[in-house]
Amino acid sequence: MGKTQNIYDNETFFEGYKKIRQDKQSANILEEMPAIYSLAPDLHGKDVIDLGCGYAEHCAHFKKMGAKEVVGVDISEKMLEVAKRENPGIKFVRADISDLSFVHKKYDVVFSSLTLHYIKDFNSLAKQVFAILKKGGEFIFSQEHPFSTAPIDGPKWIKNEKGETVAYNLSDYALSGKRKVNWLVEDVIMYHRTFSEVINALIDAGFKVERVLEPLPSKAAIKKEPKLKRRYHKPNFLIIKAVKK
Amino acid sequence: MGKTQNIYDNETFFEGYKKIRQDKQSANILEEMPAIYSLAPDLHGKDVIDLGCGYAEHCAHFKKMGAKEVVGVDISEKMLEVAKRENPGIKFVRADISDLSFVHKKYDVVFSSLTLHYIKDFNSLAKQVFAILKKGGEFIFSQEHPFSTAPIDGPKWIKNEKGETVAYNLSDYALSGKRKVNWLVEDVIMYHRTFSEVINALIDAGFKVERVLEPLPSKAAIKKEPKLKRRYHKPNFLIIKAVKK
Repeated sequence: MGKTQNIYDNETFFEGYKKIRQDKQSANILEEMPAIYSLAPDLHGKDVIDLGCGYAEHCAHFKKMGAKEVVGVDISEKMLEVAKRENPGIKFVRADISDLSFVHKKYDVVFSSLTLHYIKDFNSLAKQVFAILKKGGEFIFSQEHPFSTAPIDGPKWIKNEKGETVAYNLSDYALSGKRKVNWLVEDVIMYHRTFSEVINALIDAGFKVERVLEPLPSKAAIKKEPKLKRRYHKPNFLIIKAVKK
Repeated sequence: MGKTQNIYDNETFFEGYKKIRQDKQSANILEEMPAIYSLAPDLHGKDVIDLGCGYAEHCAHFKKMGAKEVVGVDISEKMLEVAKRENPGIKFVRADISDLSFVHKKYDVVFSSLTLHYIKDFNSLAKQVFAILKKGGEFIFSQEHPFSTAPIDGPKWIKNEKGETVAYNLSDYALSGKRKVNWLVEDVIMYHRTFSEVINALIDAGFKVERVLEPLPSKAAIKKEPKLKRRYHKPNFLIIKAVKK
């Protein structure tokens, strides 16, 4: 089915991922979601497509925020099974989002949460997203932070003698390309891109970059869980809003 | 004279800096200059102002490229002394560029090489630069890479048992603000900003970001000096072109 690894249909990965998403203190809930939702426009009457919708929590949120049509796209049959069961009012399409030729209408918002680091050719994707947006439409996405995807041997923290995290071991940042990481299972395939490569791909596709966020946990969350302070050395996510002017 | 530290008038700093700039294999020559010049438009008939001109090598280059008027601005009397002696055809102004109220005309290009990390309030500077640009004018600048300015204790490489650089010790990235670094002399004051803070300041000032570069040494330069490979872990510079549409 296309070029992108379908790791979410791996049984072990799927079960591990389910557990993470059930955790109300996850980085997704504490850091990513408030930041990415803060970039969303007024959705009343808007058509929204969510690339890599997973369980469709975001799709459900957009529907609640007044979106007219919400379409969720995912490569994983297992994820879509859950998504469909829980969201009867939303359309779903099973597809590899690296090829958007299955999209035959234009949208007000193209949204993508923590999926694009799985896509090999971001330049091609940015151009395809531009093509399926209405004029004035917005591309709002989050991805793993480039600091996280950079190290070929996987991300590592640096600790002091007391075991406190004091820095992040950044390597291979400028060597963009394929990464095999062990996350829930072995050999999950991701693609590392530098900041400038991500931004320039959007510019080259015709977008105006409107906002870039590197969100952190709130002070309250850090007070509750002091080890979250390590995010000051390396944020978890990169979030961008780009507009088709 | 304003708020910015005038470290270039420190005798030891000035002499140390002179030596670095005389080195034809410096990072400025191998990495920064080709990248920042690659972003410059056709300068024929254009008015250019260079914020933090130093010795005015860039001013001289712009003149040679056909610029009509070139103005060099620097806070350092010593730097301007050299600049004036070597460039009789160029106007120079001694000023702290954190306050551009001395500028009374509009320019086609505002250029700044490796100076803006000395300026405390980049949001204010971006707005002031926007104001002194003609419509369609370009703000082209380089700065220390945010990875370099991030660590409060200064940048550190990580080496393996053989003494080879294998990573960069990234810390305090999300804690933007003042840094005191030891570079040529003690307590040189710089300001760290994250990628997103730099980009968003430009957007908020009204700019369209057109290009972001994180230049590396060429393959030939790395072949000649293999230790330059460490730039793959941490590039030295961040270079941006933003346009007043």
